[in-house]
Amino acid sequence: MTRPASPPPGLADEATLDQVGREGLVAVPGAPTPAHDGSGRVQLSFTVTDGQDRAVRVPPGVTVFDSASWNGIAIDSTCGGHGTCHKCKVRLDVPTPVSRHDRRTFSEGELAQGWRLACLATATQDLAVEVPPLTTRPKAATVGVGRQVILRPAVQKRYVELTEPTLADQRTDLQRLSDAVDDLELRVPLAVLRLLPGVLRDADWKVTAVVVDDELVDVEPGDTTATRYAVAYDLGTTTVVATLLDLGTGTPVAVASRLNKQQPFGGDVITRISATMMDPDALARLQSLAGETLDELAQQVCAEGGVDPTQVYEVAIAGNATMTALALGIDPEPLGVAPFVMSSAHPPVVAAAELGLSLHPRARAVVFPSLGAYVGGDIVAGILATGMDRDKRTRLFIDVGTNCEIVLSDGETVVSTAAPAGPAFEGGAIRCGMRAADGAIEVVRIEADAGTVELGVIGDVEARGLCGSGLVDAVAELVKVGLLDGSGRLVTDEAAAAISPALAQRMEKVGEERVFVLHRPTPESPTAECVYLSQRDVRELQFAKGAIATGWTLLLEELGLTHDDVQQVLLAGSFGSYLSPASAVRIGLVPTLPVLRIVSAGNVAGEGAKMALLSHRERAGAEALLEQVAYVELSDRSDFNDRFIEQLAFPGAQGG
Amino acid sequence: MTRPASPPPGLADEATLDQVGREGLVAVPGAPTPAHDGSGRVQLSFTVTDGQDRAVRVPPGVTVFDSASWNGIAIDSTCGGHGTCHKCKVRLDVPTPVSRHDRRTFSEGELAQGWRLACLATATQDLAVEVPPLTTRPKAATVGVGRQVILRPAVQKRYVELTEPTLADQRTDLQRLSDAVDDLELRVPLAVLRLLPGVLRDADWKVTAVVVDDELVDVEPGDTTATRYAVAYDLGTTTVVATLLDLGTGTPVAVASRLNKQQPFGGDVITRISATMMDPDALARLQSLAGETLDELAQQVCAEGGVDPTQVYEVAIAGNATMTALALGIDPEPLGVAPFVMSSAHPPVVAAAELGLSLHPRARAVVFPSLGAYVGGDIVAGILATGMDRDKRTRLFIDVGTNCEIVLSDGETVVSTAAPAGPAFEGGAIRCGMRAADGAIEVVRIEADAGTVELGVIGDVEARGLCGSGLVDAVAELVKVGLLDGSGRLVTDEAAAAISPALAQRMEKVGEERVFVLHRPTPESPTAECVYLSQRDVRELQFAKGAIATGWTLLLEELGLTHDDVQQVLLAGSFGSYLSPASAVRIGLVPTLPVLRIVSAGNVAGEGAKMALLSHRERAGAEALLEQVAYVELSDRSDFNDRFIEQLAFPGAQGG
Repeated sequence: MTRPASPPPGLADEATLDQVGREGLVAVPGAPTPAHDGSGRVQLSFTVTDGQDRAVRVPPGVTVFDSASWNGIAIDSTCGGHGTCHKCKVRLDVPTPVSRHDRRTFSEGELAQGWRLACLATATQDLAVEVPPLTTRPKAATVGVGRQVILRPAVQKRYVELTEPTLADQRTDLQRLSDAVDDLELRVPLAVLRLLPGVLRDADWKVTAVVVDDELVDVEPGDTTATRYAVAYDLGTTTVVATLLDLGTGTPVAVASRLNKQQPFGGDVITRISATMMDPDALARLQSLAGETLDELAQQVCAEGGVDPTQVYEVAIAGNATMTALALGIDPEPLGVAPFVMSSAHPPVVAAAELGLSLHPRARAVVFPSLGAYVGGDIVAGILATGMDRDKRTRLFIDVGTNCEIVLSDGETVVSTAAPAGPAFEGGAIRCGMRAADGAIEVVRIEADAGTVELGVIGDVEARGLCGSGLVDAVAELVKVGLLDGSGRLVTDEAAAAISPALAQRMEKVGEERVFVLHRPTPESPTAECVYLSQRDVRELQFAKGAIATGWTLLLEELGLTHDDVQQVLLAGSFGSYLSPASAVRIGLVPTLPVLRIVSAGNVAGEGAKMALLSHRERAGAEALLEQVAYVELSDRSDFNDRFIEQLAFPGAQGG
Repeated sequence: MTRPASPPPGLADEATLDQVGREGLVAVPGAPTPAHDGSGRVQLSFTVTDGQDRAVRVPPGVTVFDSASWNGIAIDSTCGGHGTCHKCKVRLDVPTPVSRHDRRTFSEGELAQGWRLACLATATQDLAVEVPPLTTRPKAATVGVGRQVILRPAVQKRYVELTEPTLADQRTDLQRLSDAVDDLELRVPLAVLRLLPGVLRDADWKVTAVVVDDELVDVEPGDTTATRYAVAYDLGTTTVVATLLDLGTGTPVAVASRLNKQQPFGGDVITRISATMMDPDALARLQSLAGETLDELAQQVCAEGGVDPTQVYEVAIAGNATMTALALGIDPEPLGVAPFVMSSAHPPVVAAAELGLSLHPRARAVVFPSLGAYVGGDIVAGILATGMDRDKRTRLFIDVGTNCEIVLSDGETVVSTAAPAGPAFEGGAIRCGMRAADGAIEVVRIEADAGTVELGVIGDVEARGLCGSGLVDAVAELVKVGLLDGSGRLVTDEAAAAISPALAQRMEKVGEERVFVLHRPTPESPTAECVYLSQRDVRELQFAKGAIATGWTLLLEELGLTHDDVQQVLLAGSFGSYLSPASAVRIGLVPTLPVLRIVSAGNVAGEGAKMALLSHRERAGAEALLEQVAYVELSDRSDFNDRFIEQLAFPGAQGG
């Protein structure tokens, strides 16, 4: 076989990044940016002793530390920006107010010279920032769409050798440990307090503190600092992908995917929500199936990576709002009926064990927040991974699926919406539709002059159906050669014969419906199935792409833009990875722009989950997106239907 | 009746408070205090529109709001000093720095006039504070030793009627609720998020939010604001007392006490610690017995008060460090062996359910912090209840028991220590010793001239033993009449006969040991037991009181004081309540001062626990005590033994 039915994580990511890199379409580190232009952003010009000078633009109110970190500029820090380690010293040309911590760190003279702690200095205007040489070399990892992430996992370990208590030094066990790791603040759960006295004394006061954010989750005998893992999840409705990350190096150790075990309750979110409305036990069952799915994957990646599951201290989960609610055991019913209301945009941080995961007993689960009932945590993770909020180009992010999520940024403002595309892109409601599995036609090329139809079939086997990308390709190619007109009607037999007699022979009738035959039994393969595209299939695709195009059209209007302003389209998700950019343009699924500007972004939800684990600053960035990104509800727009009708036509058609 | 074996809470407290009030020994509200004198305190002069003008002195760094609250001065607030309700407006003669919240509350003109939010204004120098009329009348309760506590429970309820969501208002369920109770910040646990969508819709969006500190612990259908309860515990080694509090009114609803179910593991902390060292299962068993004790009492007070246990949202537990560790399931072994180290001074806030309590499923347990392994949460609660840290007199607090805790304040500095008194005060190691139960001699009066011995016996029954207060009385009376010399030796028969022939007849020998007979069979009661005080009993008492006197002597030295400087002695705990002040002075258990200045403070641990429940500011005060009160370890003092020898003698003796 060649292409897996499920998205190929890891490999796909690298391929995507390569491609993106080649095309030079992502933010290039070091690229000059214009000076502060009253656009609502401020510019920070970093003079970096140990690295390349850089200018970056950020929303006002971001700290200097975050501004640097988000742009891959390293500033010393061991506390990761909590204001406790006093190491992130920078010098500002326009000094910010002096904080309590600044006073404890700098002399009066240094303060007067503009020295401040970067994690406490907020950028409210353009600043020149001098970054002194690093005393430690922070590690960085490339994740997401060309994003450089400086490793600052929430999971931290500190090996300490404590002095034994004496009558002259009766500090409590916890105080003794806290004093030794004084760059971290420690909140201690009862369970750890219970084991602390025994571990300290049994381990002869030589222990490793395991801290997640500010919580002491364990105290391990001896030096265990080398082992520190986390699992990033893309919790899809269909497929769930898990990546085991080594938090010390930022590298993936193992990747696995499997179908979501909730599948028997329905293929999409609406059927699963319906299940909980019909059967009072369904929610508990769906929750437990989500947990089983997540845990099986966790055990699998740990086994493959040779990692003891108890060394996994954190997981991050990016899923749509319904998958998130079901995994947390929250009734999803209000998500499924108007006015589509979530219980909370921000799921609480929970114990991984509470989600059914058998990892470290106090491992934590970070669940991505959602922008709306239909723009969920997977999209927030995608925005993080693509840096939609930190790039000054006008970019359009589209995650195509049964429910299609759309995000638009003009470099200043980010807006998002959801469009109900229906199941066409997943092969649903299509006569010969099927999932992207062996035997599915995924590529179609039609030549009018030669009268030929070339098919790319998953698994290089006999074609037996049409998956989403094949459907888009087939329609786009028929539009290209003129067998489909702009309104989406298959032309008459006469018109077809005028275009190509060979192709016209493929125009048939199945029942009352006209179809275009893509594949049929031949003398060489007499048992082949007949695979065709029907007039109704074309209508289904029109409705699907019309909904999506209406979505981004309204978002463009929201920001006062037209589709000409779009500089890049990011196609997210597994379907986006396989879609032909040319076909997407031809059917009007995306705005008309050069195909090289249409980029498959890969599994961005999983990438965003990785980023959240590798950097607690990026995680904070994801939370901040909820304030920064507006959610636009389309279903109550009076102009939605008019726009929808306008968007049904195919822009790439030869005629009208 | 008689006197119960366990401390009579409630009644005893009131009696104590009466007594204290009569004697005029507690801080009188409104009493003038001297101006700022460089003593390390600052003076705040409150001009109160709705009440009496007051001047109070507090440590620098305390907020104006706390300074008022701790002194019973009401300032408007609904958030209880969290900086969110913006109601605690005051005007200062010397304005403090302007906070972000001040800017949102006041105009520039008002800020210039000195208006500030009291909860954010820190007193760093003497201030005049103008308090505007109250818009709400805060309730106050009198608890502890004459302490006025303004009711600001951590447990708060808000009844809200929410607007239903629409497509134009898709705020999440949680956001909708948070917006309606915007004076509180809400952190929401997963369990509440799970029930939120259902409750809101089933209750037609009319619900009561139950908030403990910043945690939303429940959302109840309809208006339940009238029912809000908490249970305060004095978790003693011997006796556990529970008080059910109505948090709406601050009044106790029911009180119950019972023996600690851990008793079979030993009568004191050391035997219980030893049990955990001998038997690996003992810790779990002791923990579960603590939980059973607490829960039985909770169920009992709820039944007596007619309160549904699920309406109890919080409990506070004040116990010594060992009882605290055992209740939390923390190995107490390091508390029992030098260098006597606690796992943590601050127990984490835990779910009451985790301690075995069947109350509201998310009720919280606030466990008092400890100053040291032998100055535990009961003493911290006692300091809170007696206001040891907020009174400018030199006061000595003594909790007499097997382990005796001593706290000394000179009005500025507070120091504490523990003295190992041994079991004498509980009737242990005393020939005819017994607990304070029916038949125990608790009062002894000896008249040399008349040659009489008068006994007060608990339960008005035939005497059958000697409890702690009887022991102290007996020794003190023998010292008074001269039958015991200053060194603690029973005088010779000849000397005794010279003092009183009748009393000399009571000097006998039991085995090799000389004794003084207090009670014996008579023709009228021929079956009576013989109850006597032996020479060795006197020695036991000398060691016990010697250890205690050494403790307070060293603390006085620590602050550069002598016993003449002591203005008040507070005797805490059940034993303290029954001790005769005159006898305590005569044997040297307390410094020599007028008996009216020796005050029984009652069950101060339980009172402190109540205060923590009635006011989260008082609770913060308890936490702050850990920074303010120094713990002095006596066991490594080179001068301890010398001082101990010095303190063995009886100061009230006629001779030696």
